[in-house]
Amino acid sequence: MSSNSGDGTRQVLRNVRPMGGAACDFVIDGARIAERLPAGTADATLPTLLDGAGALALPPLVEAHTHLDKTLWGQPWRPNSAGPTRADRIANEQRILRDFPVPVTQRAAALLEHCAALGSLHVRSHVDVQLEWGLRHVREMLALREAWRDRVSIELVAFPQGGLLVRPGVAELMEEAMALGCDIVGGIDPAAIDRDPIRHLETVFGLARDHDRGVDIHLHDPGELGRWQIERICDFTESHARQGRVMISHAYCLGSFAPAEICALADRLAALGISIMSCAPPHVSVPPLGLLRAWGVNCCSGSDGIRDLWSPMGNGDMLERARLIAMRFGWSRDEDLAGALDIVTQGGARALGISGYGLETGCAASFVLVSAETVGEAVVSHPVPRAVIAHGRVLVPRPSFGSAGASSRAAS
Amino acid sequence: MSSNSGDGTRQVLRNVRPMGGAACDFVIDGARIAERLPAGTADATLPTLLDGAGALALPPLVEAHTHLDKTLWGQPWRPNSAGPTRADRIANEQRILRDFPVPVTQRAAALLEHCAALGSLHVRSHVDVQLEWGLRHVREMLALREAWRDRVSIELVAFPQGGLLVRPGVAELMEEAMALGCDIVGGIDPAAIDRDPIRHLETVFGLARDHDRGVDIHLHDPGELGRWQIERICDFTESHARQGRVMISHAYCLGSFAPAEICALADRLAALGISIMSCAPPHVSVPPLGLLRAWGVNCCSGSDGIRDLWSPMGNGDMLERARLIAMRFGWSRDEDLAGALDIVTQGGARALGISGYGLETGCAASFVLVSAETVGEAVVSHPVPRAVIAHGRVLVPRPSFGSAGASSRAAS
Repeated sequence: MSSNSGDGTRQVLRNVRPMGGAACDFVIDGARIAERLPAGTADATLPTLLDGAGALALPPLVEAHTHLDKTLWGQPWRPNSAGPTRADRIANEQRILRDFPVPVTQRAAALLEHCAALGSLHVRSHVDVQLEWGLRHVREMLALREAWRDRVSIELVAFPQGGLLVRPGVAELMEEAMALGCDIVGGIDPAAIDRDPIRHLETVFGLARDHDRGVDIHLHDPGELGRWQIERICDFTESHARQGRVMISHAYCLGSFAPAEICALADRLAALGISIMSCAPPHVSVPPLGLLRAWGVNCCSGSDGIRDLWSPMGNGDMLERARLIAMRFGWSRDEDLAGALDIVTQGGARALGISGYGLETGCAASFVLVSAETVGEAVVSHPVPRAVIAHGRVLVPRPSFGSAGASSRAAS
Repeated sequence: MSSNSGDGTRQVLRNVRPMGGAACDFVIDGARIAERLPAGTADATLPTLLDGAGALALPPLVEAHTHLDKTLWGQPWRPNSAGPTRADRIANEQRILRDFPVPVTQRAAALLEHCAALGSLHVRSHVDVQLEWGLRHVREMLALREAWRDRVSIELVAFPQGGLLVRPGVAELMEEAMALGCDIVGGIDPAAIDRDPIRHLETVFGLARDHDRGVDIHLHDPGELGRWQIERICDFTESHARQGRVMISHAYCLGSFAPAEICALADRLAALGISIMSCAPPHVSVPPLGLLRAWGVNCCSGSDGIRDLWSPMGNGDMLERARLIAMRFGWSRDEDLAGALDIVTQGGARALGISGYGLETGCAASFVLVSAETVGEAVVSHPVPRAVIAHGRVLVPRPSFGSAGASSRAAS
């Protein structure tokens, strides 16, 4: 991950409370956690990487679904000009982004900087592959991925936003995008947009097998139509041996059924290691994340669009996203709030296949420090600013957290 | 409202952009807006109340539904201990709050301070009237209302949280609460909790008529049962001549019907001046605020519980609430974001009957200044900190907004 991994540079992250537990010192060797000791007991002669002053320490937040290449982050406010349908939004975006004067790299880098400062150190970004700009976004995002490699790990999904089969030439561009180095093969609404679900899945999973890559399919299709496609995605995951490497993004349809109607499907998703990604938007049906997790289905989340031509709403804060998830399901109890946090941390790390993730000895020395008493409070208050450490380096310093604790107490 | 109203103390709020429009100077005479002039044209010899440096100016935010007496704001984090039903939550709260060591005044004052700093200068708070503590909360909240009179206008609703008829003695306490000076007669689930909807409404509306007060009824009852009770509330509003003085809080049932099924009822709500209050929670059905507004029904919003024994979620930020409302309905366009803002400003002011509200000449010189380019951006970003001016006095100063503008630009 980083050039200073295990290079013998030992430093100490002092006095932080992992997941709100007892205060610890983390001895860091290069880019890895070498030891986790009670606070105040680490070798005082070792250099201090950061003094957490009792702050709550989380593993890095995982942004498992966004579209960095679409963002207008850093640009002046732009009134939303899209029509009401998904097709309107796609056409509106193609028209405006094709000739947008500020390049992808500049817009996406501004957003990455923002996301990293909030603690997202692992990002999966879809990248538009479409006729209007060919592989321009892909090339720019690949360069950005390289430039950020030591700070934020970026997975790029080659994403046929405008359709894969309905627009001749896109399948070939997708093939090229994978050859150029994209990490994941994307798909979108095999039925509603591409209108030939089986050929769509054959193409997507075929590309994934040929390039030994994972799959991530945007599935907005509702109700029975959506559920039928999830069943087919399960079929293809088996037939193309993609177990543990497939994500279904949005999957709104799963929110349309009573639990008994989807439990067999949930069992199958769990058995195949297919992850469900939901931003838990409040205006549509969403997959029942609590039930799915209880069934053993891995769930993760993302910001989706962040200040883009689809909507101005997203803000890239995955700790706030945990709060929005909790609100979406009416979760109030500490164990449920911890579940919401798990979705934006461990769940994302599992979905993205991140190795060495966590706060244990041997894991990457990456941390997000927030001023909160408990995990529940961290989710509810999602306090800023945060200190961020990536692979043993301070990415976002913070001189002092003052007295760590509730925003409600700070304000009182 | 304030002792310095129209007392000839002329000051200028300089260089702010009301609702994101052209920059203005506001000449303030005592507690009122005397003139609204193009920026830079107000008499330079007049004292400067505040230099807004181009910040966006909003009228005060209106918190139309909260429970100040229930809050644990300023207290250590407390894991939610309530069971799953409404009855569980009520019993859990009664048990814990009855002997809570920190008095209402201290907890509620800490929260008010926080809400005011975020720009809520008009607050309607329900106050529990129940056998466990009789009128203790009422007396403490009445004292708080007095102490805050010059800064935040507080309307107190005598609220029979545990039921009005099912618990003998509560109706008499409600009568006493109104005699002591509560502003509004509260009710709760006439069918589900009190189990005698007509007698419940007779009692509530009877008290309101006797004391010449308004009515605010918590209505959680779902579907047809809820809709039937809204019809009866309309009946009582007419028979007891409470037009323009009735609010129905939550009214989740209105979210369970197709528009055609509630349009006649919406017409009736509009004609009777009955306001609908919704916090727009994402985990339950909610009244269709956009449709209701289009029908002429006044809509307002609130935080509901803020860090209390029901849930740790609320945070008292009504500008963020506008964003949550917009998200709840999938609103992205500037006119819809402005509608969301209208719900937490003008809609609340109409519902609470606040006179002299707004940014026009003659209105109260009360402002919330935020660093945003447009109203849409203010809703999406709900930036903090804010400057707050209440009746011609700076309540929350802010030395400089720096370069006013997008959080997305500040972060880039």
